[in-house]
Amino acid sequence: MTEEAVLIDNDDPILESDFIKEMVRQMRAIDTYGTYDDWSADRILESFILTKEMKRELPVIGDPDEIVISRVKAFYNAISALIEQECGLMATPLLNLSYEGFGRVIITVGKLVVVDRNLRDVHRFGFQDLSKMKDEADRLLSVAIEIVGKYSDAAGM
Amino acid sequence: MTEEAVLIDNDDPILESDFIKEMVRQMRAIDTYGTYDDWSADRILESFILTKEMKRELPVIGDPDEIVISRVKAFYNAISALIEQECGLMATPLLNLSYEGFGRVIITVGKLVVVDRNLRDVHRFGFQDLSKMKDEADRLLSVAIEIVGKYSDAAGM
Repeated sequence: MTEEAVLIDNDDPILESDFIKEMVRQMRAIDTYGTYDDWSADRILESFILTKEMKRELPVIGDPDEIVISRVKAFYNAISALIEQECGLMATPLLNLSYEGFGRVIITVGKLVVVDRNLRDVHRFGFQDLSKMKDEADRLLSVAIEIVGKYSDAAGM
Repeated sequence: MTEEAVLIDNDDPILESDFIKEMVRQMRAIDTYGTYDDWSADRILESFILTKEMKRELPVIGDPDEIVISRVKAFYNAISALIEQECGLMATPLLNLSYEGFGRVIITVGKLVVVDRNLRDVHRFGFQDLSKMKDEADRLLSVAIEIVGKYSDAAGM
């Protein structure tokens, strides 16, 4: 945790966005032993930031470990929570990792699939910086809300 | 394999149904070493039949083993294949087992969830007899086809 380069500025305004607040909430929710209790938001989310150089150093051999998988889950849980807030219907994520870091994640609202992505190299799950992470989430969220709007009858079942 | 009671009659007419034929095809597809090559359909499907007494003897402790999971996958793969045949659109199953035999399986067609089930006691996955197995499949299939018909625009994306 004593890195020379700071991965997230602790006064970054993005830290105040709904998505990042939800991410912090998700991370605290899985923190069974209270390790993060006195951690600030930027320190909790630091593990999501992987620069290109950091990614290159991570091997993609074997299955990704539980800590990486819990981060992937936290990310898609946060997106589900935001979809729920936005459209008022329950959104459920479902993650399926097959092997060697390949898998698929979907989020359903009613009978509707609003997020559907194939995953690969899950070992290297991370974002170049906090704003890239939020952009990605915003994109998924807006597509999901659009789908719910388009097929509202299937979503509202 | 030398059991006193026969679990499946080898002249059961259900063996000629589309669903059972598809089940046999799925089981042969995952039979990497050709063990089933000279097995008859009733022998291949015997592992899906669990009477109440047999179920009671199976412990539901720990995670279910790979062989049971492959049977669950074969079952839902066969249902996906039949949905595909019936409605002409690709159907994709997604199985997620969390732990201790709990999980969720969904089948999607386009943006539509046509099968959505919570699983429990996966260790004891099986059916009392072949006709119960086919009934279950027919029920899932007819609900799925109904959903596709109702929300055809979301399914056809």
